[in-house]
Amino acid sequence: MRAQADSFDTDLGAALELLISAGGKRIRPALTLLTGGMLNGDLDRLILLSAAIELLHTATLVHDDLIDGALLRRGTPTLNSQWSPGATVLTGDFMFARAAHLAAQTESIEVMKLFSETLAIIVNGEITQLFGQRCQPDRQDYYRRIYAKTGSLFETATTSAAIISEADEHTLAQMRKFGRNIGMAFQIVDDILDFTGEQATVGKPVGSDLRQGLITLPTLCYLETHPDDLDVHRLIDGDCTMDGASVNRLVEAIRRSDAIGLAHKEAFQLVQEGLEALREMPPAPERDALEELADYIVQRRL
Amino acid sequence: MRAQADSFDTDLGAALELLISAGGKRIRPALTLLTGGMLNGDLDRLILLSAAIELLHTATLVHDDLIDGALLRRGTPTLNSQWSPGATVLTGDFMFARAAHLAAQTESIEVMKLFSETLAIIVNGEITQLFGQRCQPDRQDYYRRIYAKTGSLFETATTSAAIISEADEHTLAQMRKFGRNIGMAFQIVDDILDFTGEQATVGKPVGSDLRQGLITLPTLCYLETHPDDLDVHRLIDGDCTMDGASVNRLVEAIRRSDAIGLAHKEAFQLVQEGLEALREMPPAPERDALEELADYIVQRRL
Repeated sequence: MRAQADSFDTDLGAALELLISAGGKRIRPALTLLTGGMLNGDLDRLILLSAAIELLHTATLVHDDLIDGALLRRGTPTLNSQWSPGATVLTGDFMFARAAHLAAQTESIEVMKLFSETLAIIVNGEITQLFGQRCQPDRQDYYRRIYAKTGSLFETATTSAAIISEADEHTLAQMRKFGRNIGMAFQIVDDILDFTGEQATVGKPVGSDLRQGLITLPTLCYLETHPDDLDVHRLIDGDCTMDGASVNRLVEAIRRSDAIGLAHKEAFQLVQEGLEALREMPPAPERDALEELADYIVQRRL
Repeated sequence: MRAQADSFDTDLGAALELLISAGGKRIRPALTLLTGGMLNGDLDRLILLSAAIELLHTATLVHDDLIDGALLRRGTPTLNSQWSPGATVLTGDFMFARAAHLAAQTESIEVMKLFSETLAIIVNGEITQLFGQRCQPDRQDYYRRIYAKTGSLFETATTSAAIISEADEHTLAQMRKFGRNIGMAFQIVDDILDFTGEQATVGKPVGSDLRQGLITLPTLCYLETHPDDLDVHRLIDGDCTMDGASVNRLVEAIRRSDAIGLAHKEAFQLVQEGLEALREMPPAPERDALEELADYIVQRRL
């Protein structure tokens, strides 16, 4: 990843260094390397692929943080907090270009197709969220959103590794399901942590999604189990015009309710189905590591 | 190109429609189709490729206009003049994704590599211009800049068509040279028109490049032939802090000088060398059309 700015402007090298050194969990490239390792794929191509996937992810974050005006990411100042909007847009574009370049070096046209489709799905999801109606509780809409936001790239991380490893159709389908399911579970857990996490840890106020009118799974579960809650009606009938006191009350009610447990159960169920798909793969140390990764995803910070 | 937003958010379809219906000269896809036609390439793949190239070009313009705060492009309101910065960034990203998707459908990994390299070169050039020093007269720097800005994508338009047509190494090298040379000539003519064009036609004040501290070929030629002009020294010694009256005087002096003719001669020379490369190709109606296109490029609006 670091080498991708070599022979380009030194400012781009500095930006890339800043972004990479901020860290991150690197779950997506781990999924790629472990899936490819389990399926005996070529290591050099898998390394190119996993770098491409993490760089694509990082590029989307650069533009997201700019659009959201976020000042911190992974405890480090964002690029947009230090650079002009123009320079931030272009740095994101440069990283898209270099992610595509890394992906092309895997020499697989199927991987390139998957890559470009995934970027279109991610960006389309953001556009829909930007222009879409808020405060509309809709479970199908929620699942579509978390697929676009997180499920799709997790799915591509495992599927493209299987493609590079020349896996058969059945293996491809199973690994696609595994990636998609743990990706969606990952996002659900993120959405739960938005309610249950400590402000200091999550880095934003508790219930920040709901405060922005974004309905996530804990809120959906709460709405279903508390249809008579007056604040709920204020939220969904009132077209997002809830006063601060009502939002605080609703966030607190969701935090203390069984909605958290119900949402978590859905994440757990997705991971279980993903693990069932994974267990059809041949035993390998990498398969065990993928199981551990899936367990971590559903259990982290809860 | 229009079909690329099908099955995505309708707002993206509307944005794409707006951008495509604004028109443009479509020189890049014409180069691709004519080169591929001359070399007997597969028409379906060439159509995908030419759409990919024009869409990539359009995506870079979407981000450029946002960064520059441009309100009009091709006489039509820009996307950023009507949409939020966030929506504009994402629409550009979506178009990058769909350009990559179209390119991947050509089934050529070589084309994908060329595509991603070209995007990196274009964006890197913009970053360098953003962070680089202004008012530094440097001919080598100018040629590097116009290669990144225009030459590289013209080169990719002809080279990728030759790749799709399974051309031999010599043909590839000649068509690469033809594309690069007429692309650089196209940009030089653009830079000349910035001085000689009428404000109403060009859509911005005469000499707008120089007013922004951007030194282009007409200014370079003027500096070389008028080393004793006091305004010139104010410009290059004064670190871009020229007063309005001096800039007006210098723009007028350049307009009336032989610098315009000298700059045009360099564009003409580039086109001639490009045409020499082209004439090594087998005779074909498409080759004649490429010659006409090259003539148009160097003669337009002068």
